[in-house]
Amino acid sequence: MDYEAFFLSGLQSLRAEGRYRVFADLERHAGAFPKASRHSPNGIHDVTVWCSNDYLGMGQHPAVLAAMHEAIDSYGAGAGGTRNISGNCHTHVLLERELADLHGKEAALLFTSGFVSNWAGLGTLAARLPNCVVFSDAGNHASMIDGIRQSRCIKRVFAHNNPRDLDRQLSEVAPDVPKLVAFESVYSMDGDIAPIDEICAVAEAHGAMTYLDEVHAVGLYGRRGGGVSEATGQAHRLTVIEGTLGKAYGVVGGYIAASRALCDYVRSFASGFIFTTALPPAVAAGAMASIRHLKESEVERLRQRDRVARVRQRLDAAGLPHLDNPSHIIPVMVGDATLCKQISDRLLDDFDIYVQPINYPTVPRGTERLRITPSPFHSNEDIEHLVSALSEIWADIGLERVAA
Amino acid sequence: MDYEAFFLSGLQSLRAEGRYRVFADLERHAGAFPKASRHSPNGIHDVTVWCSNDYLGMGQHPAVLAAMHEAIDSYGAGAGGTRNISGNCHTHVLLERELADLHGKEAALLFTSGFVSNWAGLGTLAARLPNCVVFSDAGNHASMIDGIRQSRCIKRVFAHNNPRDLDRQLSEVAPDVPKLVAFESVYSMDGDIAPIDEICAVAEAHGAMTYLDEVHAVGLYGRRGGGVSEATGQAHRLTVIEGTLGKAYGVVGGYIAASRALCDYVRSFASGFIFTTALPPAVAAGAMASIRHLKESEVERLRQRDRVARVRQRLDAAGLPHLDNPSHIIPVMVGDATLCKQISDRLLDDFDIYVQPINYPTVPRGTERLRITPSPFHSNEDIEHLVSALSEIWADIGLERVAA
Ligand SMILES: Cc1ncc(COP(=O)(O)O)c(C=O)c1O
Ligand SMILES: Cc1ncc(COP(=O)(O)O)c(C=O)c1O
Repeated sequence: MDYEAFFLSGLQSLRAEGRYRVFADLERHAGAFPKASRHSPNGIHDVTVWCSNDYLGMGQHPAVLAAMHEAIDSYGAGAGGTRNISGNCHTHVLLERELADLHGKEAALLFTSGFVSNWAGLGTLAARLPNCVVFSDAGNHASMIDGIRQSRCIKRVFAHNNPRDLDRQLSEVAPDVPKLVAFESVYSMDGDIAPIDEICAVAEAHGAMTYLDEVHAVGLYGRRGGGVSEATGQAHRLTVIEGTLGKAYGVVGGYIAASRALCDYVRSFASGFIFTTALPPAVAAGAMASIRHLKESEVERLRQRDRVARVRQRLDAAGLPHLDNPSHIIPVMVGDATLCKQISDRLLDDFDIYVQPINYPTVPRGTERLRITPSPFHSNEDIEHLVSALSEIWADIGLERVAA
Repeated sequence: MDYEAFFLSGLQSLRAEGRYRVFADLERHAGAFPKASRHSPNGIHDVTVWCSNDYLGMGQHPAVLAAMHEAIDSYGAGAGGTRNISGNCHTHVLLERELADLHGKEAALLFTSGFVSNWAGLGTLAARLPNCVVFSDAGNHASMIDGIRQSRCIKRVFAHNNPRDLDRQLSEVAPDVPKLVAFESVYSMDGDIAPIDEICAVAEAHGAMTYLDEVHAVGLYGRRGGGVSEATGQAHRLTVIEGTLGKAYGVVGGYIAASRALCDYVRSFASGFIFTTALPPAVAAGAMASIRHLKESEVERLRQRDRVARVRQRLDAAGLPHLDNPSHIIPVMVGDATLCKQISDRLLDDFDIYVQPINYPTVPRGTERLRITPSPFHSNEDIEHLVSALSEIWADIGLERVAA
């Protein structure tokens, strides 16, 4: 077989469909978010980033950077091993305590990323609970889907955010079979939020465990940043709460929070936890500083909400179509991969605005979009510039508007 | 089902088998490797670490730390997004070029860890090449096994480091079926090294791709640290070379290096690459500084080899049994999980020496061991202290010695 030809033709299909991904080559500047420098064939230009998942700009927070600097000076660059073999450091231990406290759980377990925490956490539970059936929300993230697939358990997909369908499907499995309900709080591409209380109620009625991905909610919702489960007073009902240190907390890494026994079990059996180098102490220290700050401070969350509301209001005033939802995510709908890329290119080239086009497989075909994530650091001028740029492009391409 | 009881009983079985893992709670000190502080119920003690995978101590190298400090000041803490959605930064681009150059390949692709690079890299190739059969060395690492499992391709396990068995198995699959041979250069627990040239010759004869994990070799072997494939002049024959930034390079992260088309293909289709926050710029900058340093400097490698030879010689003089191998890894064989843990505990408690016991599933049952990894920073005194401590414990427990 000609392997190179196979790879090239796969890439060619992506190009033909308009969904070949070109990465923007950026340098963010600590202290100047949301501004960044963009490296392009024509040199380096300043751009305004409108699609970062460093939702609160904690990646430039002085307390976070100071904690990282300090840890590097004290402990060095990396952890030097897996958690078990010389890579466990005191900062990991402290961070896991901080995370357990954040979610009101007995324990927490760190992973190298949110992806790995889902894949390994969910995958290990599903693989080891004998004959476990996983009930997976139709909108679940790739990392959960991959973990379920890895486990080779029986999977049942329930209709997105639909406790009635979940109830129906749970009823079809014998009462004594282990069951695990996996879902997210804030769905990152539509920005809709799960009815956590109803899903927990249904799961409890059927004796099922619950596993909630709060990746797009931790730091952002709840009085201490404990996510939607904190904001709605449901944290205690969830068996597992999973989160990331790479989005609102601004660093990198992932975790699960749950009972001591469950965390210890996953720690002891998950290959994606056991057989990998631990996070650098500086990463753990930075994340810990970020979590601590957002447990106390509401300023960032309030300012972000204000910015989100203002962007929505200005988009409405300009008749630009965006999905309504109760979260901080603003999807401006385009519905075509090539067009979506074209709009994004124009924003970047003509207006120095960076919003990455979101295409399949990140979203279903036909729902391609620009996903806008306002941060506390976007000014009114930034917002006017974004909306007027979009409006101009909308006019040039002749795209439809919606009534204000 | 009583889930908590299930987890507790699983943990109880581990304890009964003597292989419940207790993490040492450490703080390494940059500038003072291999010394670390150990947090224990009795307070904080200084220990000498003898089992780190920061093989060359690059985790405390001033050039690495300086690069990380600088990147934090310039770019902040995290990347702020996936590579595709606002998380791509110029440092990632430069690091990938550095890695491609290291292995003499057209391109390289970064992942959040070596585990993820194997799982996602190998898994994506195996899943997407139509009807691909993967030939996997019997000693392969969990991350490769998990990637192959995730792909659901047909897997054939060939006898460890055995090109003849590989040849036999390749002959049994039709010539036009896509084939991928996956193996490691240095096997981390026995420290033996693959016959890369013979395996490549067999693979080439059958039109199979080759995928080599150099996780325990990059930075350590070859004139520029390009691994055993560089040291033996075989790099050009391998389709994919995979490595980590978390061991000899002292930071964290993983990668594959291969043709431009292959890397672009994996970049475009691997969910473990696409759907996860990118490595922090500071991590990428630290790793780049480390790679660049080890491309030029032989001092660390030479000093490490000298230390490894000295430990072997002193162990031999004391009649302490260790596996012979051509690498930097010294497995002192114990052969029993409980005993192995007991020796490790005594080293730590009575001699302030930290060597983690290596038990199943990291190694097969009955081959439990202490895995010793001398670094350039272990002094002659450190070595005498280690060997005399082991000798004393050997005498106390009445373990067998070998003829010098
Ligand atoms: C819902 C969800 N879960 C998990 C992840 C993975 O988290 P991380 O970026 O920390 O790997 C993501 C996105 O990256 C996500 O959107
Ligand atoms: C052979 C091998 N491959 C891959 C890995 C994973 O690399 P990383 O620690 O960067 O995840 C390891 C160990 O951790 C390993 O021993």
